[in-house]
Amino acid sequence: MDKEMMTAKILEAKSTKGMTWEALASAIGLSPVFTTSACFGSNSMTEDKAMAVCETLGLDKEVADALQDCPYKSWDWSVPQDPLIYRFYEVTGVYGDTLKALIHEKFGDGIMSAIDFTMAVDKEENPAGDRVVVTMSGKFLPYKKW
Amino acid sequence: MDKEMMTAKILEAKSTKGMTWEALASAIGLSPVFTTSACFGSNSMTEDKAMAVCETLGLDKEVADALQDCPYKSWDWSVPQDPLIYRFYEVTGVYGDTLKALIHEKFGDGIMSAIDFTMAVDKEENPAGDRVVVTMSGKFLPYKKW
Amino acid sequence: MDKEMMTAKILEAKSTKGMTWEALASAIGLSPVFTTSACFGSNSMTEDKAMAVCETLGLDKEVADALQDCPYKSWDWSVPQDPLIYRFYEVTGVYGDTLKALIHEKFGDGIMSAIDFTMAVDKEENPAGDRVVVTMSGKFLPYKKW
Amino acid sequence: MDKEMMTAKILEAKSTKGMTWEALASAIGLSPVFTTSACFGSNSMTEDKAMAVCETLGLDKEVADALQDCPYKSWDWSVPQDPLIYRFYEVTGVYGDTLKALIHEKFGDGIMSAIDFTMAVDKEENPAGDRVVVTMSGKFLPYKKW
Amino acid sequence: MDKEMMTAKILEAKSTKGMTWEALASAIGLSPVFTTSACFGSNSMTEDKAMAVCETLGLDKEVADALQDCPYKSWDWSVPQDPLIYRFYEVTGVYGDTLKALIHEKFGDGIMSAIDFTMAVDKEENPAGDRVVVTMSGKFLPYKKW
Amino acid sequence: MDKEMMTAKILEAKSTKGMTWEALASAIGLSPVFTTSACFGSNSMTEDKAMAVCETLGLDKEVADALQDCPYKSWDWSVPQDPLIYRFYEVTGVYGDTLKALIHEKFGDGIMSAIDFTMAVDKEENPAGDRVVVTMSGKFLPYKKW
Amino acid sequence: MDKEMMTAKILEAKSTKGMTWEALASAIGLSPVFTTSACFGSNSMTEDKAMAVCETLGLDKEVADALQDCPYKSWDWSVPQDPLIYRFYEVTGVYGDTLKALIHEKFGDGIMSAIDFTMAVDKEENPAGDRVVVTMSGKFLPYKKW
Amino acid sequence: MDKEMMTAKILEAKSTKGMTWEALASAIGLSPVFTTSACFGSNSMTEDKAMAVCETLGLDKEVADALQDCPYKSWDWSVPQDPLIYRFYEVTGVYGDTLKALIHEKFGDGIMSAIDFTMAVDKEENPAGDRVVVTMSGKFLPYKKW
Amino acid sequence: MDKEMMTAKILEAKSTKGMTWEALASAIGLSPVFTTSACFGSNSMTEDKAMAVCETLGLDKEVADALQDCPYKSWDWSVPQDPLIYRFYEVTGVYGDTLKALIHEKFGDGIMSAIDFTMAVDKEENPAGDRVVVTMSGKFLPYKKW
Amino acid sequence: MDKEMMTAKILEAKSTKGMTWEALASAIGLSPVFTTSACFGSNSMTEDKAMAVCETLGLDKEVADALQDCPYKSWDWSVPQDPLIYRFYEVTGVYGDTLKALIHEKFGDGIMSAIDFTMAVDKEENPAGDRVVVTMSGKFLPYKKW
Repeated sequence: MDKEMMTAKILEAKSTKGMTWEALASAIGLSPVFTTSACFGSNSMTEDKAMAVCETLGLDKEVADALQDCPYKSWDWSVPQDPLIYRFYEVTGVYGDTLKALIHEKFGDGIMSAIDFTMAVDKEENPAGDRVVVTMSGKFLPYKKW
Repeated sequence: MDKEMMTAKILEAKSTKGMTWEALASAIGLSPVFTTSACFGSNSMTEDKAMAVCETLGLDKEVADALQDCPYKSWDWSVPQDPLIYRFYEVTGVYGDTLKALIHEKFGDGIMSAIDFTMAVDKEENPAGDRVVVTMSGKFLPYKKW
Repeated sequence: MDKEMMTAKILEAKSTKGMTWEALASAIGLSPVFTTSACFGSNSMTEDKAMAVCETLGLDKEVADALQDCPYKSWDWSVPQDPLIYRFYEVTGVYGDTLKALIHEKFGDGIMSAIDFTMAVDKEENPAGDRVVVTMSGKFLPYKKW
Repeated sequence: MDKEMMTAKILEAKSTKGMTWEALASAIGLSPVFTTSACFGSNSMTEDKAMAVCETLGLDKEVADALQDCPYKSWDWSVPQDPLIYRFYEVTGVYGDTLKALIHEKFGDGIMSAIDFTMAVDKEENPAGDRVVVTMSGKFLPYKKW
Repeated sequence: MDKEMMTAKILEAKSTKGMTWEALASAIGLSPVFTTSACFGSNSMTEDKAMAVCETLGLDKEVADALQDCPYKSWDWSVPQDPLIYRFYEVTGVYGDTLKALIHEKFGDGIMSAIDFTMAVDKEENPAGDRVVVTMSGKFLPYKKW
Repeated sequence: MDKEMMTAKILEAKSTKGMTWEALASAIGLSPVFTTSACFGSNSMTEDKAMAVCETLGLDKEVADALQDCPYKSWDWSVPQDPLIYRFYEVTGVYGDTLKALIHEKFGDGIMSAIDFTMAVDKEENPAGDRVVVTMSGKFLPYKKW
Repeated sequence: MDKEMMTAKILEAKSTKGMTWEALASAIGLSPVFTTSACFGSNSMTEDKAMAVCETLGLDKEVADALQDCPYKSWDWSVPQDPLIYRFYEVTGVYGDTLKALIHEKFGDGIMSAIDFTMAVDKEENPAGDRVVVTMSGKFLPYKKW
Repeated sequence: MDKEMMTAKILEAKSTKGMTWEALASAIGLSPVFTTSACFGSNSMTEDKAMAVCETLGLDKEVADALQDCPYKSWDWSVPQDPLIYRFYEVTGVYGDTLKALIHEKFGDGIMSAIDFTMAVDKEENPAGDRVVVTMSGKFLPYKKW
Repeated sequence: MDKEMMTAKILEAKSTKGMTWEALASAIGLSPVFTTSACFGSNSMTEDKAMAVCETLGLDKEVADALQDCPYKSWDWSVPQDPLIYRFYEVTGVYGDTLKALIHEKFGDGIMSAIDFTMAVDKEENPAGDRVVVTMSGKFLPYKKW
Repeated sequence: MDKEMMTAKILEAKSTKGMTWEALASAIGLSPVFTTSACFGSNSMTEDKAMAVCETLGLDKEVADALQDCPYKSWDWSVPQDPLIYRFYEVTGVYGDTLKALIHEKFGDGIMSAIDFTMAVDKEENPAGDRVVVTMSGKFLPYKKW
């Protein structure tokens, strides 16, 4: 079973059970972002977590196997069009030099890892309009000088 | 004075004084991310803050005027090449569908604003390697249905 | 049911009933632009409006469910080719700097929202040739300075 | 004098005099959108209007000559990056099929002209946040069938 | 029936009957270029002409309905590859500035309409090699100054 | 002297003398399209015609030399943005398949040459609006079968 | 039958008979390059040659008809990726200016036709490693000056 | 001295002396294609040949040094626009699959080298029009199987 | 059988037998990189090696035939998106000029062949984190000077 | 001093002293690849190494300062054109899936770091033609599962 069919089966079961991503993540003991991304085929799970997804959603072992496969990560654009995703691209464009300057100032020459990386999405209630809070945490990787 | 020359003058003065972005931001009472982005020409400042930048760095009024101009925001790529900036693009690509799913689950149909938006860059010390923590906060904007 | 099949079913029913977009919009109490865009899968409807579309056109609940899903917005081009759509792209190109200058002059630094946004298409009769009148109204969003 | 230098001279004089685009347009008896676009080099003026610009701003005849030249229209992007301009591109993308459907429904097969075309930008005050109102009016051009 | 299937049915009937585009155009009283382009799905016909195509070729009413639909015009390239079509692109590139200069010299600031537009393809016999003669006629549209 | 400087000198002299492209072409005994394109650096002239341009405009021999150089033809776009030039691109896109079908029907397998090629731009007066008439004539080149 | 299916049928028959392109070309009295390109759908054959292909390979008349159709020439890339094809692209890039300079020096202003064009691929045995010899012959087409 | 200035100096001296590429190549004992490409900065010469170029053209040692530098090869396009160069690109596109099939048939799996490579441009006189004959010879490189 | 189906059959058999690429390569006496690339359809095998793959995995002769076909090499991107593959692209970008300088310094003007080429992937255990070691070996090809 | 001027000064001094990259690297106690890349502005040096470069080459402190700046890494292409660099791009394309399969097989889900990364270029003498050996070593980074 490939990742695409895996995602389709998970979405169908999730919809039938009326389960949210938050609830699924909580049931298997992982974060919502990681759980969702693995179910969309962008990350791989360990065997026990993959089995837990299938038990929670009532899916069979083939789905669990697919969840453990190393994914081929790709996306359908170089510049995204969906407005929600585009805004993150715009933030990268507008604040790219700023991120670079501040990370170099605080850490020296290197980058924030996108591999040893976690992310959370939270809702902050606010009378002037609720806010989406996205927190990224990536290990600082200094450039090796050899 | 255009934004490019303004940035050059600020960088030169900042280097001469040996001042960090953090210190400059602190001196004028704004966040480091906003301060840096305005000095790079990606945001505009109010008159009092622009004057404060110039007083702190010993620059004249033309720089303060340029800091108040509405910027034409652009960046030199559709896909960034600098590894530090590319990783943010990669995160948007790998986690775009996940961000979309979780924001819709928590907030309904809409987006995180990149205009009514704040961001912070922090250093989290960690024996396994320090971590870069980037926190974005954007107002949720529901799609109008009219 | 995905958005593509939803649109196909709506178009077929609309054609069979000989109903215009204007009439459908009027029947459900929404504007023609919003109604059409939601039926094309570019916007989501609330439950009552989605049910009203299905009652008006004699479609079943699966279509109504699909109308409520948050859409993944995208388009098949970076530069459009259809002459009708291209002219709007051309207007954005020719008048982009002008729009920017006048909105900044009237409102300060910020943008017109494309999310808290409405649009209307009207016909203005004119002996020298009828005119298409497109009216866009978007909330002004000032850049946050933090 | 080419259009680029013409625009530079107009912007400098306009800034020195502290004149708005609205005021300049009013002084020469043209709309703000057309006046601004011609001063940015995207449209040409008739001789009397070009002379009026120069009289109002205290500029010499070479500027007036340049204002009358037929412009070579172009823009620096295929997908714009400045957030204010991008939102108009996004509207064209999200609502392109809708505009096409409604214009064809009201007018038949043809397009809205971007040449026999006017546009206005207005501010609508609103306690929930002021709104930018953009009104486009283009002659409907039916496809010739020969 | 969509335009693609419509074109397939017309091409099949045309081939079976051994009819040329010229003959089909003559039979229905339209020009060869317009007739061909409508049969390829790039233009729409009026009801009587669409019916005439179907009578001439022995096709049923669904084809005639499709011929009346407003087409979504698009092409599969930004730079064409087929040598016959590429040469027209090359002519536009090599002579673009020349066309612009001469049309402005003769007509003033404006464009040749591609909507109120006709075209003919003729064969000019010539002992040094026959020549293809393509004649385009488009209404001059002056830029509105408002 | 390169072609760019050559064009600048010709445009300046032409403007000073108040001469049109039509008049210049007539003075040297070539067509307006060819004359203009050679002066813009897109074609080369024979020595006698190049000398005639210089005599007519009062330019020196270096310009005549440059007019005889084989040009490197290029244009600044893959998809043109200037509306006047874009319309020719649009015509190529919308009618490309039609041109291909009709030329093959009349001539067999081959192309219209863009090298053994002439073009004319004419003004057709018309009470419903004057028309731009562009006539292209290219030698038919049959594909060699060897 | 379209060109794609035609090619598939020819390749299948050719493989079954164990026939080379050279042998097929020899059997029908055309060059290997032209024969191969026509069988791949990039050129059209005359009726007798198309019939000869079918007789040689034991294919029916539909294939012969398809071989006579004027092809729509296209390729799947703007920059080729297959290393064998890329090297020809690289040669065009590295030696483009050189080819232009030498052809203009020998022939004057004009081009080598790619239509009145033949090509051969030969093997030159060489103890230091056999060599691929590709010979192109195209009619020189001088630019018309009119 | 960089390659660009080197080329400019060679072209100027060559023009002053009225020398052809063929004559220059003959004088230094290299082929015209290689000589031209090295003078355009696309290939490097050995010291004795570089000195011979300078002696023949009366240029100083700096030019000879630059002729010996390893070039950074690049070209200004992904799809060329100059018609002479485009035709070679078109040939690669139209005949790419054919070249691949015939080279594999004659040599097995591998490519024609563009590095161990020579090329000649010849003029073939022909009453039906002179022909450009381009002969490429590249070492066949079989793919290593390890 | 085309290469895509061949790969699918190999992957299925490899998974059923629980065999690694290393083990398969060892069984047939080729390197892991070459074996894997040929099974993915990027290289061709000799008949005996292709037969050995099929015997090892229990596949029939059609797969062995497909393994011997000359591949059409291509990849789905110009800039890769999968993070593992992107990092190799990034290395090429960041160190391209360095590779060029050092290879020219050690070998003179020429390139590293990607055809007469081998590659190995090894694991180097390291207490600070295991390392991926990729070793490429390509024949140096000097540019021919003719 | 920016990185571009820094590189120019280093190249000039290196050329004047007739020093190789290998010798420079040896003199300062770093590898040739890292030394070259830092001098080209693609990596930053520590203060002592930067000073050592300047002492070795007789350059002043401004160059040493520039060598310590964090670089903005970029390259002039998405697909490289220089044949030497292109071959590395081609290797990434042809062997990308193979690298991915073998690294996942040996290490699990993760990537080879391009930041904690070293590279060497060596010459392997070989009677059949010397070989370029490039060895890359990057830390394996497993994807965090959180």
